[in-house]
Amino acid sequence: MNVKTYEVQLPETRELDILDLTEIVEEKLDKSGLQEGFVLLFLPGSTGALTTMEYEPGLKKDIPEALERLFPRDIYYHHEETWHDGNGHSHVRASFLGPALVIPFKNGQLLLGTWQQPVFIELDNKPRRRKLIIQVWGI
Amino acid sequence: MNVKTYEVQLPETRELDILDLTEIVEEKLDKSGLQEGFVLLFLPGSTGALTTMEYEPGLKKDIPEALERLFPRDIYYHHEETWHDGNGHSHVRASFLGPALVIPFKNGQLLLGTWQQPVFIELDNKPRRRKLIIQVWGI
Amino acid sequence: MNVKTYEVQLPETRELDILDLTEIVEEKLDKSGLQEGFVLLFLPGSTGALTTMEYEPGLKKDIPEALERLFPRDIYYHHEETWHDGNGHSHVRASFLGPALVIPFKNGQLLLGTWQQPVFIELDNKPRRRKLIIQVWGI
Repeated sequence: MNVKTYEVQLPETRELDILDLTEIVEEKLDKSGLQEGFVLLFLPGSTGALTTMEYEPGLKKDIPEALERLFPRDIYYHHEETWHDGNGHSHVRASFLGPALVIPFKNGQLLLGTWQQPVFIELDNKPRRRKLIIQVWGI
Repeated sequence: MNVKTYEVQLPETRELDILDLTEIVEEKLDKSGLQEGFVLLFLPGSTGALTTMEYEPGLKKDIPEALERLFPRDIYYHHEETWHDGNGHSHVRASFLGPALVIPFKNGQLLLGTWQQPVFIELDNKPRRRKLIIQVWGI
Repeated sequence: MNVKTYEVQLPETRELDILDLTEIVEEKLDKSGLQEGFVLLFLPGSTGALTTMEYEPGLKKDIPEALERLFPRDIYYHHEETWHDGNGHSHVRASFLGPALVIPFKNGQLLLGTWQQPVFIELDNKPRRRKLIIQVWGI
């Protein structure tokens, strides 16, 4: 039984960018040499989120449009009183989507669906350079 | 410390069906023989989701109604341009709810609330026969 | 490799209270003596949720306001037919936010962002005294 914790630097992201994390995660899984277990992905920050999706151009627009519809940027957020940085909507979106994702693997392969990719969604209203935690557990 | 990975075939599901997974998960937990740890449930696919709920007939209607209200099926989804399969809403719903669920156990018993069941929610617009990954970790 | 499971009693909470869990989680992590691994938080119950947020007074209002907007309390919930307890909205909100949270740690420190705290959100419509499961895994 083993655990390996990696910290990965993501490329700069702008609001509502969605990054496919598959290659980054597979590289760390290969590096770990583990065969059966799970990968824990975690975004240290309160204005970004992790989930899975079919990573294709249409859904890369549909998910941001759903976020704008459900958590509009132009309504009043009390967060503004604290920081005056205009990203109340970013924080609320991030709390609803969540910062963590767990994916099992076997025979050294992630047990994802054929059309399912792990993704990071940038929600902040200014460009960010994020670090992502990838922790691999297994035998 | 041990890990066991199981793949379970679920019965055919139709859009907005909700399946109680309690018995399936408890069976694998018993089979593993482990006493203290956690169960990781993962749905390999981008049009289904896992969460917990009180599994009763009213909420089995309320959760689908909330999904229809928040992510209507009859608005425009760019996903349509890629696949023309009419399930853009299914994908967006799945990304918001998430594909993974982790439940701790002790003394060989899941530490769920009395009125809390792990469930699979079918979100695709055509009937599916799903496989579910159940990974048990513990001592 | 080790696992420790703790059960923590939370102070009484009322609907839409949000509790910062950082100190409680750090105390159990310290007590475990583990250096590299993850903490699994789980709420046994179907009307409460866990996530992360910047714990500041503005967002403590913005997240409840988003919940009221997306899952209004005064629309019809079929759950009412089963229990007549007026908390259909509580259940639906909890299923969307989710009952579990996983946070990695290294060198005995949670790998959270600077402005990111793990929180419990009370969603039930009557005061509750909750227990929270904290399971620490690591080396």
